[in-house]
Formats: sequence, C-alpha cells, structure tokens
Amino acid sequence: MELFEAISKRASYRGHYESTPVPRAHLEMILRAGLDAPSGCNKQTTSLIAVDDATLMAQLLDAIKPDADDPHPVVGGTAPAFICVLTRRLVAYRDRSYFMQDYAAAIQNMLLAAVALGYESCWVEGYITDADKLGRKMADILGVPEEYELVCYLPIGVAVDPVRRVSKKPMRERAWFNGFGKE
Amino acid sequence: MELFEAISKRASYRGHYESTPVPRAHLEMILRAGLDAPSGCNKQTTSLIAVDDATLMAQLLDAIKPDADDPHPVVGGTAPAFICVLTRRLVAYRDRSYFMQDYAAAIQNMLLAAVALGYESCWVEGYITDADKLGRKMADILGVPEEYELVCYLPIGVAVDPVRRVSKKPMRERAWFNGFGKE
Repeated sequence: MELFEAISKRASYRGHYESTPVPRAHLEMILRAGLDAPSGCNKQTTSLIAVDDATLMAQLLDAIKPDADDPHPVVGGTAPAFICVLTRRLVAYRDRSYFMQDYAAAIQNMLLAAVALGYESCWVEGYITDADKLGRKMADILGVPEEYELVCYLPIGVAVDPVRRVSKKPMRERAWFNGFGKE
Repeated sequence: MELFEAISKRASYRGHYESTPVPRAHLEMILRAGLDAPSGCNKQTTSLIAVDDATLMAQLLDAIKPDADDPHPVVGGTAPAFICVLTRRLVAYRDRSYFMQDYAAAIQNMLLAAVALGYESCWVEGYITDADKLGRKMADILGVPEEYELVCYLPIGVAVDPVRRVSKKPMRERAWFNGFGKE
C-alpha cells in the first residue's frame, strides 16, 4: 500500500476481530517495521513480542480484564494476535533517555504496517502503564526480565465492525508556515 | 512510495542539502501526515510550523549554532526547509499526558512522508530540548506562545551526500514470538 494511503487509513480500532489467524510472515513484516524505526543515538531501546498462541492470549486477556465494576471491554480482546511493546530506559545523550520517543516511533511504523497488510489495530497504552501495573502482569506471563517494561500492546487482525476515524481539528488550527498561527 | 519501502529507506541524514526549495504542496503533504498520526485520547497535542523563508531560516540557524568550542555543525544547516514540532502537555487519561508519544508518532509519519517524496530528514531533538533551551529560542523567533514547547525540528530537502543507514542489532535480539527471547 502507498504510504500516504496507509497514513490516512490508519484508525484506532476498538471493535471485534475475525478469528482468522495472522500469518507469521505478516507478523514478521510488522515487527520488522517496528524495529526499523529510528531511536535516539541508535540505542534501540524497543523490543517486541508477537503473541499468536491461543493459550498465551487467553492468559494475557485474563491478566488485563477490567474489574467487575468497569464496563469497558478489553480493547482487541477478540484479536487473533497481539504485539507487545517492551522498552528499556537506556541513557542516550547526556543524562537523557529517549525510550518513549523510540517506542512511539516503532508503534507508529507497526500501525501503518498493519493497515498496509489489511489489518486493524489500536495503540493500547494508557491503562497498561497505569498505577495497577497491568504491563508488568503481561510481562511476567511472557517471561520478560525486570529491566524491560511492557508499555503497550497492539491487537492485530481483520476487522469485523466498521472502521471509524476520529475527527480532528482543521489543519489551519494545528499547522502553519513561517510563524505560529500564520498563513 | 510503498509503505514498507519508505520505512526501510528512512535514515537519519546529517549531510548537506541541495538548495532547491521544497514545494509548498510537498511541505503540506508532510504536515498533513504528521497531523494524521494518532494522539492519546485524541488530544491532538502536536502542532507544526514549516519554515521555508530564507530570513527566518537564517535566524533559526543563528539561534541554534554551536558554541565556538563545539565542533559539531548544525544538523540540516543547509536544508531549504525545516518543520518545527510543537507540543502541549495536555492531560489525556487520569492525570497523564501522552504528549511525547503523540509528537513522536507525528514525527515518524513526517519522516516517512519526506522519504516518500524524495527528501531526506533527521529527527533533531536532543540538543533542542536540553538545558540550554534552544527550543525556546526557536519558538520565540516563530512567535510561539509559552504554553507550547518546541521539541524538535526536521530539516527537509534533497540530499547531496550519500545516505547511510545505521546498522542495527539482528531481529532475533529484539523481537520474538510468544515469549521473551523465544523462537
């Protein structure tokens, strides 16, 4: 798929997925797209685990299922595969780590790759890295060492429901030429 | 350009640029690619300013030029255009802001868009957001209000020098299936 088409088609899909497995070749293309993203000082702070084993998927979903009083379903709970995003806070420049920028760029590449291959996905991070530490629960199931943090998962699969893109502010409110708010 | 080609061609280019201007239509396509990136809870924390005015470019370069004792040239100092990336730390979920993930995803989209249109670029962030606050100096030149931070610029233009991609760890050291370090 052409780049600009992939960029404009990408949406945060929170609907149901077909149960059809995602071929390993496609998961590998998505993983490789993630690893091809830049990282600050080339520290390559991002690592990835694709999950397509049904037993493991069930364990992960059980670990992140909402409390009984939370009406929100797990995003991507019916997806045939997840890609879990790991990071290490390695120092890159002076005393700073760019781990967050690094994994975000990797995620963006993977979201585009998923779209280009005919899948939908969603960047699920907020409640994974939040105070209840769901990311660590997922990491433990996947045997992830303590020095890595699991910060996000991307469900990958074919959408059943209609894909809706959010509406955004008009371009003139967010992008300008040669000065803030100009032209 | 096909998505996976753009992803694999993208490199952090620190060489010289041709002086040929970048057409506004191309800059607009790159800006739009940036704005099309997702943002946490759709808060759209990222804003962009494309700079292609020669006088303004000279002022920006003067603001970020290295100290006399620093031998590093300004990255993209010969580029005909810059895209400056602004952010606001808006709260998205509970008490958290995803401004950093948001702008990183926008930057990644723009880097790919630049490659697809035949340009090179480089994610220049580290020394812009560092203690000497070069980002604020650039922001003042561009009339950016205090509530926005200028965190990165992307030089955009046609490369003169050879484009070299950094070497990265083999995939098996960074990506696995169904468990850390597996398969």
